[in-house]
Amino acid sequence: MAFDLGTMTTNPGDSTFDYASVVSINIFVALLCACIVIGHLLEENRWLNESTTALIIGLCTGAVILFARGGRNYVIMMFSEDLFFIYVLPPIIFNAGFQVKKKQFFRNFMTIMLFGVVGTVISFIIISFGASQVFRIMDLGALEIRDYFAIGAIFSATDSVCTLQVLNQDDTPLLYSLVFGEGVVNDATSVVLFHAIQKFDLVHIDIKVVMKLVVNFFYLFSTSTFLGAFTGLLSAYIIKKLYFGRHSTDREVALMILMAYLSYMLAELLDLSGILTVFFCGIVMSHYTWHNVTQNSRVTTKHAFATLSFIAEVFLFLYVGMDALDIEKWRSVSGSPEKSMRVSVVLLGLVLVGRAAFVFPLSLIANISRNSQNDKLTLKQQVIIWWAGLMRGAVSIALAYNQFSRSGQTHQQGNAFMITSTITVVLFTTVALGLMTKPLLHFFLPPSTRHLTMSLSLDPSSQESFLSLLLSNGQAIEVEAENSVPRPTSLRMLLTTPSRSVHHYWRMFDDAFMRPVFGGRGFVPLVPGSPTERDGPD
Amino acid sequence: MAFDLGTMTTNPGDSTFDYASVVSINIFVALLCACIVIGHLLEENRWLNESTTALIIGLCTGAVILFARGGRNYVIMMFSEDLFFIYVLPPIIFNAGFQVKKKQFFRNFMTIMLFGVVGTVISFIIISFGASQVFRIMDLGALEIRDYFAIGAIFSATDSVCTLQVLNQDDTPLLYSLVFGEGVVNDATSVVLFHAIQKFDLVHIDIKVVMKLVVNFFYLFSTSTFLGAFTGLLSAYIIKKLYFGRHSTDREVALMILMAYLSYMLAELLDLSGILTVFFCGIVMSHYTWHNVTQNSRVTTKHAFATLSFIAEVFLFLYVGMDALDIEKWRSVSGSPEKSMRVSVVLLGLVLVGRAAFVFPLSLIANISRNSQNDKLTLKQQVIIWWAGLMRGAVSIALAYNQFSRSGQTHQQGNAFMITSTITVVLFTTVALGLMTKPLLHFFLPPSTRHLTMSLSLDPSSQESFLSLLLSNGQAIEVEAENSVPRPTSLRMLLTTPSRSVHHYWRMFDDAFMRPVFGGRGFVPLVPGSPTERDGPD
Repeated sequence: MAFDLGTMTTNPGDSTFDYASVVSINIFVALLCACIVIGHLLEENRWLNESTTALIIGLCTGAVILFARGGRNYVIMMFSEDLFFIYVLPPIIFNAGFQVKKKQFFRNFMTIMLFGVVGTVISFIIISFGASQVFRIMDLGALEIRDYFAIGAIFSATDSVCTLQVLNQDDTPLLYSLVFGEGVVNDATSVVLFHAIQKFDLVHIDIKVVMKLVVNFFYLFSTSTFLGAFTGLLSAYIIKKLYFGRHSTDREVALMILMAYLSYMLAELLDLSGILTVFFCGIVMSHYTWHNVTQNSRVTTKHAFATLSFIAEVFLFLYVGMDALDIEKWRSVSGSPEKSMRVSVVLLGLVLVGRAAFVFPLSLIANISRNSQNDKLTLKQQVIIWWAGLMRGAVSIALAYNQFSRSGQTHQQGNAFMITSTITVVLFTTVALGLMTKPLLHFFLPPSTRHLTMSLSLDPSSQESFLSLLLSNGQAIEVEAENSVPRPTSLRMLLTTPSRSVHHYWRMFDDAFMRPVFGGRGFVPLVPGSPTERDGPD
Repeated sequence: MAFDLGTMTTNPGDSTFDYASVVSINIFVALLCACIVIGHLLEENRWLNESTTALIIGLCTGAVILFARGGRNYVIMMFSEDLFFIYVLPPIIFNAGFQVKKKQFFRNFMTIMLFGVVGTVISFIIISFGASQVFRIMDLGALEIRDYFAIGAIFSATDSVCTLQVLNQDDTPLLYSLVFGEGVVNDATSVVLFHAIQKFDLVHIDIKVVMKLVVNFFYLFSTSTFLGAFTGLLSAYIIKKLYFGRHSTDREVALMILMAYLSYMLAELLDLSGILTVFFCGIVMSHYTWHNVTQNSRVTTKHAFATLSFIAEVFLFLYVGMDALDIEKWRSVSGSPEKSMRVSVVLLGLVLVGRAAFVFPLSLIANISRNSQNDKLTLKQQVIIWWAGLMRGAVSIALAYNQFSRSGQTHQQGNAFMITSTITVVLFTTVALGLMTKPLLHFFLPPSTRHLTMSLSLDPSSQESFLSLLLSNGQAIEVEAENSVPRPTSLRMLLTTPSRSVHHYWRMFDDAFMRPVFGGRGFVPLVPGSPTERDGPD
């Protein structure tokens, strides 16, 4: 984590760095520890989750500091988009790709693309149009057409980090893969939309511009995916070729971490979607690289990536909470609190409507392509999909700062309104909607039916022999083991599943070409001593 | 890792951060990957080790960039003391404490203190005095008395990171614990010396000032140690109390990482020695906390800490290598390359003499207190101790920058000489002396006698029942298992070992009071399901 080092001056001999920075780091690290402990204690709680706890602790700390300083401003840490996009986001998305249930993800790939691309565009149009109409009436100061489009792009981007908090991969794997997958694909869409906003003449949109955007999107999507897959395969190849016979856990883990990060930074360098790249890099690494390393490396990577992601998530919510009470940005809108509130309500409403406008129609379309009756998305599930994607989080704040402020502070009134409203929307959706999620899930999908959802979401006939090896790194097996009680036998379902044949050919290709070269489950010859290499204390 | 974020401006919607920063990060991460792969390939090589490889790769990259830019300056990354002291150093030292053979360390504690405190002071006096005499004759420009003392403090500080590269804990545990332990204790001495340089009137030193310094040192040493031990014990207590029965690997690992880092930053906040604190925090965590967590957490922490430390070390040497060719600082001394070379040679000579002046006499004193003949330090071992502590590395560079430059660039000629000479000394000791270390070790301690050294350094009669549990978290057992072939039986040695009774009482205290409260080997009741919790893929 980086704490705006530019402002630090250091005196290491004397062991006194810039006092304020050291204080900030101490406060943050201590609060992170507190969040973890309190979050653990509240684990059984019906309402709270870890992220809401962190957000609330952040808000409280911000309030305490504000009062302790008598209302004068004291920014512990400026919200920095670099910090967010360069250091905090990559581990979260990479870990999501590394731990995602790949089978589930690829089975629902078309639905995910539908939501992530078409859905985002629909939401973008509705929010941009709505905002331009309403805010013009409200007279918010100098907002250009570009700003309205930016509002649309900011608020139509699903926050993948929030989704991770709201839905649980083990409880609701289908919904998780749909909403989280949407969030990842969504990032590519957002990049294209932002490009378009900055480069095209958006007042006169014709078919040519639209075609160009579509081509742009597919170029971006395929290159980003390719880059992620390529880096992942390269890591698998290097570890398989060089390390065979004399494994070194530390080097293997270091190489995986560094190459995953490299894929993200390369994508940023090439103006691609870093999120998409690092997500696919995670998928490929868990499918190939992970099987080429020692048993100790497997345990270490699995938990170390999860831990890094966990710390980054808690940090993020804490950070957003503490940043929300920065007095400066509230001062410029303090003259008209009512108006600021109205802007927030309008934006929140547009987000609700914009998301509803594509989730339900697109679910209908998705259901048409799903042959089996059991496979279709029920209305209750659609409501959860709509709900779980509503949260707006740190991504929205970072984008809003980027668009509406120069050097972190905002002076123009219209811009100030946008920033404070974004914060209000983020706080409201994360805290209020976040608190309601557990009860809502409980209400719509009580634990008894959840098992059914889970078993339906998995291919029920794939249990033993065939599909269980397909596209899985063992996750499917584990889930199926948990899930062995309700097993509606139906060979018919297997036959009617359209993705089955794609999986079949991929499996053949994977076994014939990919795994012999890159390793993977069952294709790594046993290393003498390595499987018995026990994880005793050293 | 933080890359001087102050200079970055970001545009996340467009996914283009400041181009130069992204390029820098990409180059660094790619080079880190290259270092790991090449280092692995060269593992069997007689001369090179990983750090020398990284340094050479860094130098080559610097040269390539320099030529590609036609000699114009292009700083990929300014050397930043904050980056070094806040992010890179803590994981290295913490891991060293976490993995250190505690029994070995505490058995040699008095010798370590002798080297780390008295030795450093002797070396400091010799280097300061020598530099003031020689540089006055050489006419180096405006250097004050304070500067000479600073030179003494900078060059008498053993670089613990370099020691880790030169000596191997498994091959030469006694020498490793002596030299590395000296490096850690040394940091406290350096902090006191730097304080003294900045606050006391050093021209008139009387007994009062000396007494004050001695009191200062013991205050600093005890409070730093206490802070580290306290944080470690707190983490053990929290995990033992709260997590019992429902372990969560990610939370446990996160808590351990964060609390270790917190101990370091708290020490910096309180003007204590962060290195000493985080080192003792690592020792306490491996003695208590590590035993309170799940099997998966144990494997993960062990390897994750080692990996972080490994990445930090490689990064550091790469960084020093690339920074060395920054053309700016060489320009101001380019008028008199001969003089610059002479300064470097003088400093190198003073380092050699200063270290020899305390290693050999203090070894004699240490040998007096070691009763057993086999336990005494041989002349060959003394030469290795002298040699292994000669390396000067990133710590020296960071201290030199801090003392002799303002805002990273140096203009005054005397200061410029000091900085370039420090870099020259660092490069020479790390590359030239580093290359000679493996052959030298081979020459002085051939593998056949090394086993003897190792068996001597362990308490040979402690094998089975009693001392093997003493102060160990299983490391001793492992080493003893490796070492079971040459076993000179001698109950006499056990009886004559002076540290034995201290160990005995500590063991009694540990079993009666500490472990029941804080957990530890054998004092954590089995958690249902947790020991069988297998590290299967998920």
